[in-house]
Amino acid sequence: MPKIVDHDQRRLELVDATWRIIARLGIESATMREIALEAGFANGALKPYFPTKDDLLTFAFGHVFNRTNERIAEVTAGQVGLAALRAFCVEVLPLDEERINEARIVIPFWQKAINDPDKARIHRDSMEQWLAAMRRYLAEARYAGAVTTAVNDAALAGQLLNLLLGAQIAAALAPEGQVELGLNEQLEGFLTLLGC
Amino acid sequence: MPKIVDHDQRRLELVDATWRIIARLGIESATMREIALEAGFANGALKPYFPTKDDLLTFAFGHVFNRTNERIAEVTAGQVGLAALRAFCVEVLPLDEERINEARIVIPFWQKAINDPDKARIHRDSMEQWLAAMRRYLAEARYAGAVTTAVNDAALAGQLLNLLLGAQIAAALAPEGQVELGLNEQLEGFLTLLGC
Repeated sequence: MPKIVDHDQRRLELVDATWRIIARLGIESATMREIALEAGFANGALKPYFPTKDDLLTFAFGHVFNRTNERIAEVTAGQVGLAALRAFCVEVLPLDEERINEARIVIPFWQKAINDPDKARIHRDSMEQWLAAMRRYLAEARYAGAVTTAVNDAALAGQLLNLLLGAQIAAALAPEGQVELGLNEQLEGFLTLLGC
Repeated sequence: MPKIVDHDQRRLELVDATWRIIARLGIESATMREIALEAGFANGALKPYFPTKDDLLTFAFGHVFNRTNERIAEVTAGQVGLAALRAFCVEVLPLDEERINEARIVIPFWQKAINDPDKARIHRDSMEQWLAAMRRYLAEARYAGAVTTAVNDAALAGQLLNLLLGAQIAAALAPEGQVELGLNEQLEGFLTLLGC
């Protein structure tokens, strides 16, 4: 079904154009017209793909989430316990320009989700997947003796997730061009705390 | 100077109206017209106080930050070390409806700050104040023997701040009416980790 594949690809091109525009101009200035122009589409040619800017934002968020999950799957392949947990968190942390740009997509999505129950549910379902993965890694690490704290795994996973989300804000609001924010040191510090 | 006091009070009335409207309709639907209506102002009467919605949002964010700091000053008065750190964090965590509503103001502010260097600087300066307070409490707690981890205080304060910021997102995007999110358990778990 070559036509369907082509449509999928055009959607991804639009998402990439959306990113560049949002990163450059902010979400409010990212009009459908600007995005069409950036992607090399005629004005109005976006409608069959994304009837509204809101649909495009939801798709872009889903795409960021999927892409992050693909990277996570790669780096955690064959890993368990603390090594898997570290690799997972490093992939989510905004440690380079690409992931800082992703944070710039995710924050506007959160803002929209405050008054949009469907978007809020997408966020919560995504985070529940991550929490489940982190709890699994923590249980493995505990079995291996690398996690020894009396604090339970659900609380630890919750702390770590909020730490990762807070890091998105720190990165998106850092001075232009500043990539080093001590986030990796924070992660290593947290992993150290688990083993004492 | 009774006139100045009156203007300050009207600004605060407008901020309260802005909150109610944002919490109810979301930031994009919170027009200056809606806010004027909610506050009982004639349309156009807002202009002398806040020329643009952006000015109003910046003022509202500053007000949330100041109000949180006033509550922090009250609950940490006479406290030091771990007790002060706990009281500080409990005040910042969105544990009740009032503070969940504050999270609904803060997230749109962050979103605006992504493409507005002045707002981003306000955020960073505010967070630097909080980090300095947390580092001071951690140093006191270390002196008292309540913090014994080898992880340094700057990394610990950074972790804790990101945990508090991530908690704002969890709370603002929780299902309607759900206040209990395990955030207090996360905080207590983190404080336990510091002492082992």
